[in-house]
Amino acid sequence: KSGEMAKSTQLIDNDVFRAYATYATIVLLKMMSMSLITAYFRLTRKAFVNPEDVASFGKDENAKKYLRTDQDVERVRRGHLNDLENIVPFLGIGLLYALSGPELSTALLHFRIFTGARITHTFAYLIPLPQPGRGLSWAVGYAVTISMAYKVLKTALYL
Amino acid sequence: KSGEMAKSTQLIDNDVFRAYATYATIVLLKMMSMSLITAYFRLTRKAFVNPEDVASFGKDENAKKYLRTDQDVERVRRGHLNDLENIVPFLGIGLLYALSGPELSTALLHFRIFTGARITHTFAYLIPLPQPGRGLSWAVGYAVTISMAYKVLKTALYL
Amino acid sequence: KSGEMAKSTQLIDNDVFRAYATYATIVLLKMMSMSLITAYFRLTRKAFVNPEDVASFGKDENAKKYLRTDQDVERVRRGHLNDLENIVPFLGIGLLYALSGPELSTALLHFRIFTGARITHTFAYLIPLPQPGRGLSWAVGYAVTISMAYKVLKTALYL
Repeated sequence: KSGEMAKSTQLIDNDVFRAYATYATIVLLKMMSMSLITAYFRLTRKAFVNPEDVASFGKDENAKKYLRTDQDVERVRRGHLNDLENIVPFLGIGLLYALSGPELSTALLHFRIFTGARITHTFAYLIPLPQPGRGLSWAVGYAVTISMAYKVLKTALYL
Repeated sequence: KSGEMAKSTQLIDNDVFRAYATYATIVLLKMMSMSLITAYFRLTRKAFVNPEDVASFGKDENAKKYLRTDQDVERVRRGHLNDLENIVPFLGIGLLYALSGPELSTALLHFRIFTGARITHTFAYLIPLPQPGRGLSWAVGYAVTISMAYKVLKTALYL
Repeated sequence: KSGEMAKSTQLIDNDVFRAYATYATIVLLKMMSMSLITAYFRLTRKAFVNPEDVASFGKDENAKKYLRTDQDVERVRRGHLNDLENIVPFLGIGLLYALSGPELSTALLHFRIFTGARITHTFAYLIPLPQPGRGLSWAVGYAVTISMAYKVLKTALYL
């Protein structure tokens, strides 16, 4: 199996890169789950945005009442957008960080803390937990990304 | 030409990676087109958000009436956000998948179906097509991304 | 230092890739700063979205008045979303472009103009500058990304 992979690239044989691949995939799957949670709340709360989405509920007036915003749906959507705002920097900076030759143990520490922080952030947003639960989990993920950015710029800076 | 490329990296000589580069670029250009479509609807529907955007329409009160939301503009913006939510995971997981040594034919199948699904999704959103057209095209792209994530974790898992 | 890096990968020793790593990190840090600016305006304007965020302001009715939208907060958030819509394509297409073997000077030109355009865009949005300041800075970044996409497709096209 290792030989087959080596045919295409050596990157995936590197432990730091494998760790990045693992945690980046986990955190993206977590982000993708927000779409399913949004769909779940839209269906159970009957709260939709597009007229074509409520067409199956019947003719005009009856169906139109389901074109509305719902607090739970909006909450999940805010969590989803916050994921995008924070996971996109992690993906980009994390990839460059993984290629900048960090120690494996240091890299694992960064990836694990970021992933844990974002999963905590989602629970803090959806339950919701009292503040500063959500704020702190956001700040931890943010700080980890800044730390990786510092290492990337220190290693690769070419302006 | 191939020699010049080899100087910088071997990645771009790999067929699976070239396929990823091609489809990732196509799907990103498609996403970028949403900005142009939004601008088109804002200008033709005269529906803007920022006061400075309507300053050329004249003095205060007359211009202010163009600071409004428009159904068509909002529809394109929802499509754009849905692109971000789904194309970001494809970019990240797809890159790792391309580096995990898949068969070329299997990789092409994944990239082509995802790209076709997202283009269909855009048409389904903008025309709009009756449901479940948009829902199905979304689900197909989602399933392709999950399938690639499974291969990445199977190949690279390092927790 | 170069030896240590070479152990993990050769990519980071490539000047074009180092330039990409530098500018991608800068532009992502700029995008991340939008979260801090949003938080600053939310706190100074006292404008929040989630009930749990205003719990520290006191019991029910008094705290609820801070659950409101604020023009300055919404402006920063629009700038943040515009960053996501434009920086995500730059990250993906820029990475593939950096791997497609461009001339170093040409690559630097692309990365520098894009980064300058997005920083200008942020100032144009937040000050705000009169149009077409913001529009032009957006268009410059957009055009740079299209130019890189053209090079990627010319080099790597594999449909």
